[in-house]
Amino acid sequence: MKVKVFVQWLPFESVVMSSLTKIETIKEFGGYLNRYQHQSDICQCQMTFSVYLPPQAQREKVPVVYWLSGLTCTDDNVRTKAGAQRYAAELGIALVMPDTSPRGENVSDEPERYDLGKGAGFYVNATVEPWAQHYQMYDYVTRELPELVEAELPIVPGVKSITGHSMGGHGALICGLRESGAYRSVSAFSPICHPTICGWGEGCFGAYLGNDQKDWKQYDATELVKNGAEPIPLLIDQGTADEFLADQLHPKALLDACSERDFPIELRMQDGYDHSYHFISTFIGEHLAYHAKALKG
Amino acid sequence: MKVKVFVQWLPFESVVMSSLTKIETIKEFGGYLNRYQHQSDICQCQMTFSVYLPPQAQREKVPVVYWLSGLTCTDDNVRTKAGAQRYAAELGIALVMPDTSPRGENVSDEPERYDLGKGAGFYVNATVEPWAQHYQMYDYVTRELPELVEAELPIVPGVKSITGHSMGGHGALICGLRESGAYRSVSAFSPICHPTICGWGEGCFGAYLGNDQKDWKQYDATELVKNGAEPIPLLIDQGTADEFLADQLHPKALLDACSERDFPIELRMQDGYDHSYHFISTFIGEHLAYHAKALKG
Repeated sequence: MKVKVFVQWLPFESVVMSSLTKIETIKEFGGYLNRYQHQSDICQCQMTFSVYLPPQAQREKVPVVYWLSGLTCTDDNVRTKAGAQRYAAELGIALVMPDTSPRGENVSDEPERYDLGKGAGFYVNATVEPWAQHYQMYDYVTRELPELVEAELPIVPGVKSITGHSMGGHGALICGLRESGAYRSVSAFSPICHPTICGWGEGCFGAYLGNDQKDWKQYDATELVKNGAEPIPLLIDQGTADEFLADQLHPKALLDACSERDFPIELRMQDGYDHSYHFISTFIGEHLAYHAKALKG
Repeated sequence: MKVKVFVQWLPFESVVMSSLTKIETIKEFGGYLNRYQHQSDICQCQMTFSVYLPPQAQREKVPVVYWLSGLTCTDDNVRTKAGAQRYAAELGIALVMPDTSPRGENVSDEPERYDLGKGAGFYVNATVEPWAQHYQMYDYVTRELPELVEAELPIVPGVKSITGHSMGGHGALICGLRESGAYRSVSAFSPICHPTICGWGEGCFGAYLGNDQKDWKQYDATELVKNGAEPIPLLIDQGTADEFLADQLHPKALLDACSERDFPIELRMQDGYDHSYHFISTFIGEHLAYHAKALKG
């Protein structure tokens, strides 16, 4: 299916002028798990993403939860491993699952590193070359992708929530904290809560954003809370047996920043759980129910 | 954890003298997804399998469902993709997920073929070399593995059911049809119902069992029903959009054989579903509820 999007001239917003190609469709829980490709104006390359449309979407537009994935993932990991589609079908919500970086032969990469370049976009807008040309993932997930799916798919415009895992948990938090009013609810699994002080974040932010650490803070959930982000409740699940908890994730720093400001946060330390999709699968139902309540309330 | 199994001298049964090593444990839905290795006396090599122990197994022994996987799989596919652990936790049943063939450097293989050798044991006892030395998967899944898990893990002895997918659906059917009284219930997803007349079965059975097609029939569900297998209800889900339905699976042949004998079968043709784990995930909950009823009834 090749669909031309009608070009809308809006007074000040960016213009969606894309063409969405459905490259796969799989029936699941009475709905459809679809994979699409499109030319991204923002990332300047062909992007791939998946959408689960629940059975209800065959009759009416449904609200949507965005899932942002972690390091090394594509759109495929969550749709295969999280068990989320069952709950989405029960709740009548769509899931939109973008890729974690721009892709393609012309896109810069560091093949020796799993935490920089392809599969590791960190949901920032890079400002330093060779990354800046394609690595505009923040604008991609907050603007271009929502405009595209709302124009093309049976999704209620403007009614969205966001969640994700690890690097994608970080992504969900910064999107929710920066885009005041854009998301009905925000949650995260094992998020990188304070990337400017952990190895993963430091390694990437220096490459993507340059050496001025002031520029990093706009993509750091803890710093955003400290620096006056509009309050929105944050629901976070974190396993106590997570192998990255001590060095990379720093949920305590975010919790402390929230406490300082009386910022609403529920951080649930889940005893004995690790960083894997088995942890996600255990709690994704509760997160989707939480989002469905906000989306339909 | 290294556990020596106490050697039991039984009057006529095979002797379990194994040592079960737990190589991984992951918390999921309040229970534990464990992976074990052991030296298999029957397959003459190191075997790996996974077990999901639901939360109830921390207090008492639980009944078990065996899951047999399809071509190219290991024990990992189903535990990652099927979404089965949620239901197993709710129902209080263990899942045992064996590998699909013997493994190891010394085990014969056909690296050019995905449907013969490693990952393609077809749950038969091979009689022809070079396969016969290690490829004894029928005895492995029906005898050695149950004896081992019942001796070592919090699993109720002798109370088991079986299911599987594709090649593993074939495996579940033949185990249930041959081992009269051994399984409380039998089900399958997209099973190879009549392997002696399909390309997959012909290619493997000739290699593993030789050219005398009489020997093949003991591992063919349709032939077993025709030739007097003890009745046990068969629950089968089959997607109508399954890319292997026309050439490889032949559920109609099994249905006809069952009709001839008034053999109990429920074949559910599921509209629009394919051969993937997304299909399995949609119906695994119903299958596990079906087995739990039989196991606890």
